[in-house]
Amino acid sequence: MRERTAVYPGSFDPLTNGHLDIIGRASGLCDRLVLAVLVNEEKKALFSVEERIAMIRENVRAPQGTALEVRQFSGLLVEFAEKVGARIIVRGLRAVSDFEYEFQMALMNRRLSPQVETVFLMAKEEYSYVSSRLVKEVARLGGDVRGLTPDSVAQALRERFRRP
Amino acid sequence: MRERTAVYPGSFDPLTNGHLDIIGRASGLCDRLVLAVLVNEEKKALFSVEERIAMIRENVRAPQGTALEVRQFSGLLVEFAEKVGARIIVRGLRAVSDFEYEFQMALMNRRLSPQVETVFLMAKEEYSYVSSRLVKEVARLGGDVRGLTPDSVAQALRERFRRP
Amino acid sequence: MRERTAVYPGSFDPLTNGHLDIIGRASGLCDRLVLAVLVNEEKKALFSVEERIAMIRENVRAPQGTALEVRQFSGLLVEFAEKVGARIIVRGLRAVSDFEYEFQMALMNRRLSPQVETVFLMAKEEYSYVSSRLVKEVARLGGDVRGLTPDSVAQALRERFRRP
Amino acid sequence: MRERTAVYPGSFDPLTNGHLDIIGRASGLCDRLVLAVLVNEEKKALFSVEERIAMIRENVRAPQGTALEVRQFSGLLVEFAEKVGARIIVRGLRAVSDFEYEFQMALMNRRLSPQVETVFLMAKEEYSYVSSRLVKEVARLGGDVRGLTPDSVAQALRERFRRP
Amino acid sequence: MRERTAVYPGSFDPLTNGHLDIIGRASGLCDRLVLAVLVNEEKKALFSVEERIAMIRENVRAPQGTALEVRQFSGLLVEFAEKVGARIIVRGLRAVSDFEYEFQMALMNRRLSPQVETVFLMAKEEYSYVSSRLVKEVARLGGDVRGLTPDSVAQALRERFRRP
Amino acid sequence: MRERTAVYPGSFDPLTNGHLDIIGRASGLCDRLVLAVLVNEEKKALFSVEERIAMIRENVRAPQGTALEVRQFSGLLVEFAEKVGARIIVRGLRAVSDFEYEFQMALMNRRLSPQVETVFLMAKEEYSYVSSRLVKEVARLGGDVRGLTPDSVAQALRERFRRP
Repeated sequence: MRERTAVYPGSFDPLTNGHLDIIGRASGLCDRLVLAVLVNEEKKALFSVEERIAMIRENVRAPQGTALEVRQFSGLLVEFAEKVGARIIVRGLRAVSDFEYEFQMALMNRRLSPQVETVFLMAKEEYSYVSSRLVKEVARLGGDVRGLTPDSVAQALRERFRRP
Repeated sequence: MRERTAVYPGSFDPLTNGHLDIIGRASGLCDRLVLAVLVNEEKKALFSVEERIAMIRENVRAPQGTALEVRQFSGLLVEFAEKVGARIIVRGLRAVSDFEYEFQMALMNRRLSPQVETVFLMAKEEYSYVSSRLVKEVARLGGDVRGLTPDSVAQALRERFRRP
Repeated sequence: MRERTAVYPGSFDPLTNGHLDIIGRASGLCDRLVLAVLVNEEKKALFSVEERIAMIRENVRAPQGTALEVRQFSGLLVEFAEKVGARIIVRGLRAVSDFEYEFQMALMNRRLSPQVETVFLMAKEEYSYVSSRLVKEVARLGGDVRGLTPDSVAQALRERFRRP
Repeated sequence: MRERTAVYPGSFDPLTNGHLDIIGRASGLCDRLVLAVLVNEEKKALFSVEERIAMIRENVRAPQGTALEVRQFSGLLVEFAEKVGARIIVRGLRAVSDFEYEFQMALMNRRLSPQVETVFLMAKEEYSYVSSRLVKEVARLGGDVRGLTPDSVAQALRERFRRP
Repeated sequence: MRERTAVYPGSFDPLTNGHLDIIGRASGLCDRLVLAVLVNEEKKALFSVEERIAMIRENVRAPQGTALEVRQFSGLLVEFAEKVGARIIVRGLRAVSDFEYEFQMALMNRRLSPQVETVFLMAKEEYSYVSSRLVKEVARLGGDVRGLTPDSVAQALRERFRRP
Repeated sequence: MRERTAVYPGSFDPLTNGHLDIIGRASGLCDRLVLAVLVNEEKKALFSVEERIAMIRENVRAPQGTALEVRQFSGLLVEFAEKVGARIIVRGLRAVSDFEYEFQMALMNRRLSPQVETVFLMAKEEYSYVSSRLVKEVARLGGDVRGLTPDSVAQALRERFRRP
């Protein structure tokens, strides 16, 4: 038996229950799961990378038998995967539009590093409409996002968008 | 570390190079890969289940470190997966139309057996248009399918469709 | 205020919980809802039209304020709609593939009868994978479809597919 | 019979003939139709909300039997719908890409307010490519958009993009 | 300048106004257009190949400057294209679902004959829902298909489906 | 025989091997091919229009029998097409998401100028994931894009993104 390491990359800005669902499923595929938090200088995030990592540490529990790490990364995903010894990249799929973009990225990543395989998992259907972007939009307009994110994330969103 | 068993189900009527590509990729995800050849009494296959299994045995070599089995099955896929001790179902994705059907099946399978996870892998882009159905159609019309299937399968197709 | 009649057409072979979900939503749009059970001589149904109508009568309760009728029809849907005085056709959407077919039918129906409008409702996400076809397939293979159909329908499926 | 109020939300920046088409169809579904003009401080509109409302008032005629209102809104759509007493949200669908986004929004809105139902109508096929965004782009490049918008809107676009 | 020959293949069972639209557009791309009527022994056609060819001859007029031929074919399309000296295959696209299937076929044809290029044209939006299959279905149910097909085809459909 | 001129428009920011593939295929359809480099003042390009034109001139060789021109344009594409005497617009299709956007643009262009026909060609499957946008993104992160663009373009990208 080989030890298997997988990377689950994302902005996690912020962590949603959809992410938690995929993390749980991905844990079944590997012995070590590295959550890779993207630091993208080009795109303004709502939460700092430190805040995003803290949200993950607070809310994610590794299932028995899987070691969990949280790391930040910038640069090429496949280089990060190689650096942490991962040969699996995990991505969640929700809808057709996801699929096209994800396929394009996965084909590019395969070209950049043929020994790393992208694996797609299907989010639970009740999270099929939950994205970080939409959760932020609803929170910005004052909507209640509990049940779509962990409670402490919902609280953080509320505070971030509180009208003075 | 846990031993991981995956099932890769299909009609394999006949085996194509697209299947071989997915089998290679799936091997990296598990310690034991069970190729599950569907016996479907409702749909007339071109090759008998014995012929299809023989094609697989002749052409598939397990990568080092992965045990490979070929089995036939009928009935519910998730029951077969449980019977062989697999918690992973592997499916190859090529295009958007695949995706919708595959999602529907995977959600149903998840409901029937929540502990079995469906994992989607992306076929190599040069096989994005290769399906057993299309390969049979081309062979039936006298087209050359070498390069789309193993050579012995191309030969078997040629013989099957030879005009008397 | 005008009285509004809507038609919800389908094969209902058999009734699923997805249908029940759409019926509940459609009731909010009209004062009278006609469930139109398609009699299609070209396609072999699993249940007779009488059995399908009985399943509906047993399991569907009209929400307060909406009159509910169950009728069979053959021929053009828009002619049936006109005959029962309906100017609304209700269709449930689940996925992209539904959408294309439904659009094609709705554009054709609009051409055949411009005063009848097709209205699309979105099924609850947990029924996004539930179709009569898939429910029958699972039941045929011995799978448990309770929760996907009313209990009496699940029972009828079990009996229909019982191995002798 | 119940009185039915529907909300048709949008930026209407500017009003197109595709909007007029959907408004006509939506009128058949309700006794009162509220056109809800989105005031989005995040996104720069070409026309002010007052101009957009004036365009609607000038060009939209309520079909007999339906009361028509034009209102501006910001914040959550479902809260606006509840405020005006609407239980129906109307959205026009043109293409598959619309569909995915619209579904995501509708599922989120359903979660935020389960008693408000989103109803999808199909635009006339000749408007399948007409969006406010594309109309503005064509007008910006000096193209003629008559027939895609009411004449006075085409005139306003011409003036807005006139080269000094 | 080179002389260009294109093939427009199809079942044309029966000819629709959507076909006529694509034929007109295709004529602008070539000096000689060969309409290739598929003889498919596997699938039961409503009209014989002779009837389908007669419908085309009666209703299609070649635009000035383009020579038009009507031929039947069976076997591989690319072999037929080579036989008639065509390096262009013309296909009409209507919707996303068309697109996927057409892409798969075009990639296969490119592999079988790299020197023949498949060219996709976009049907007029008012024919976006018109397919031979749907036209037959409507006619079978007694619906009026004038405007979707040439008048003589509509007449032939009416006679074919006349109830005795 | 008529002389045929086609326009292949794009930002070409920068030229990719996917573009080269489509240029080769488009050459078979026309006697004169005009590469139209879009000057878009609204969107910041990575390379100036002069640099982009130089990249094309350096790397594109017209196949025998086709005259090749490189021009810049701004404003409406159909007006440019008319100005250079082209009645064909060539677009490459890779995936479903392309398709929807391309269809919308093509229908708008058809309305603006009915005598110009948009023709879709299918990129080679190995370029199905190659877009200028993605190539720039990979290069920005330090990835190797040789094989996805001509070598001199890969070199130019490397220099543009060199860290000081």
